[in-house]
Amino acid sequence: MNSTRRRTVVPARDARAVRLAAGDRVRVVDLEGRQVGDVFCFAAEDPSEALSAAHTRTQLGRLFPALWESFVTDRRRPILTLVDDTSPGVHDMLIAACDPARYQALGVEGRHASCAENLHRALGEVGLRTAVVPQPVNVFMRISIEEDGGLTWLPALSLPGDSVTFEAAMDCVLVVSACPQDVVGINGGNEPTALALDLLPAHEPAERVPALHDTGDEQ
Amino acid sequence: MNSTRRRTVVPARDARAVRLAAGDRVRVVDLEGRQVGDVFCFAAEDPSEALSAAHTRTQLGRLFPALWESFVTDRRRPILTLVDDTSPGVHDMLIAACDPARYQALGVEGRHASCAENLHRALGEVGLRTAVVPQPVNVFMRISIEEDGGLTWLPALSLPGDSVTFEAAMDCVLVVSACPQDVVGINGGNEPTALALDLLPAHEPAERVPALHDTGDEQ
Repeated sequence: MNSTRRRTVVPARDARAVRLAAGDRVRVVDLEGRQVGDVFCFAAEDPSEALSAAHTRTQLGRLFPALWESFVTDRRRPILTLVDDTSPGVHDMLIAACDPARYQALGVEGRHASCAENLHRALGEVGLRTAVVPQPVNVFMRISIEEDGGLTWLPALSLPGDSVTFEAAMDCVLVVSACPQDVVGINGGNEPTALALDLLPAHEPAERVPALHDTGDEQ
Repeated sequence: MNSTRRRTVVPARDARAVRLAAGDRVRVVDLEGRQVGDVFCFAAEDPSEALSAAHTRTQLGRLFPALWESFVTDRRRPILTLVDDTSPGVHDMLIAACDPARYQALGVEGRHASCAENLHRALGEVGLRTAVVPQPVNVFMRISIEEDGGLTWLPALSLPGDSVTFEAAMDCVLVVSACPQDVVGINGGNEPTALALDLLPAHEPAERVPALHDTGDEQ
């Protein structure tokens, strides 16, 4: 497999955008473990159409897609299909992307990197812009829902090498931000770390890449 | 109380927009019971700022605000405060507004009224427009969340006269659509019915208006 030759590293606290043709697959890899990635996806021909968490929940009747189910846009068109997940399978599609107002409310003084700003900058690097920040798909993010509707932010469970793989259902632009959150302990209480985007050739089987916790020896 | 003199009826399958000044209160009344209302709210001075379900969940750490908590915008500013609720208290903030694509996917042939189209038309009637359809606050809508993340659409529990009351936290434009959904049984399996918007004078106590199920005699 030559995926490492097509690897884009998303540095800690930063984001990268990649263009995908329909059928392309991209693997989002948690390099060091317990790092949340905010994933956004826009239709290539018109970025005002974007992956929508609310429309995806409505389409699927689930809080998060199961394997081989598709995320849809705000126009209810499939845009990404979840084709593989080697992580514990805990992800979030309820929480907004962090932004300067969020860190201000959390008591941070001065500048703090955020997924919302990362999104704008990464899109700009591929010549696009968005008027809104869609609700992201927060891979590896662990939010528990209590009986009374209360939400709890928990440390991610993903281990080094864990990944989720998406297949583009249309030509699109994918943006992944390695979430800079270091006030709320979603990133395992650690300093934010890097992610990687491995572009797989279209139709290459989404084979399971063993992660540390898959091998009995290393449990 | 003179609220009935300031009543705006939202006809079944239709929507109405009302302008609110900070401090104004509006009561959304389910006139006949079991009718879902899709509530949208936009900043009066710049309707590109709107009530955001995702930012509200993040701000409050809850799926839906408790009494006296505020919905916030995508810029994390309070826009509406929930000040009274005489219904069973079951509402939704997960599901997207219905639109033509939704009814097409549900097998409806030909035209079907929708909350998304209602929103655009009602905003137009007060001279505004929005490029996006924000995820609505679905009052009286009952969606259960299963252990595995599955969502189930259930009939509304609200009885005739039940209401929720919001106080504007900023000058804003509120839009309420009496949801035309008659394929999925959220509206009690009935034909969609009308709602009412009762504008209350600023700072009038949000006193509890007895609904049918509040009086032991009529249980």
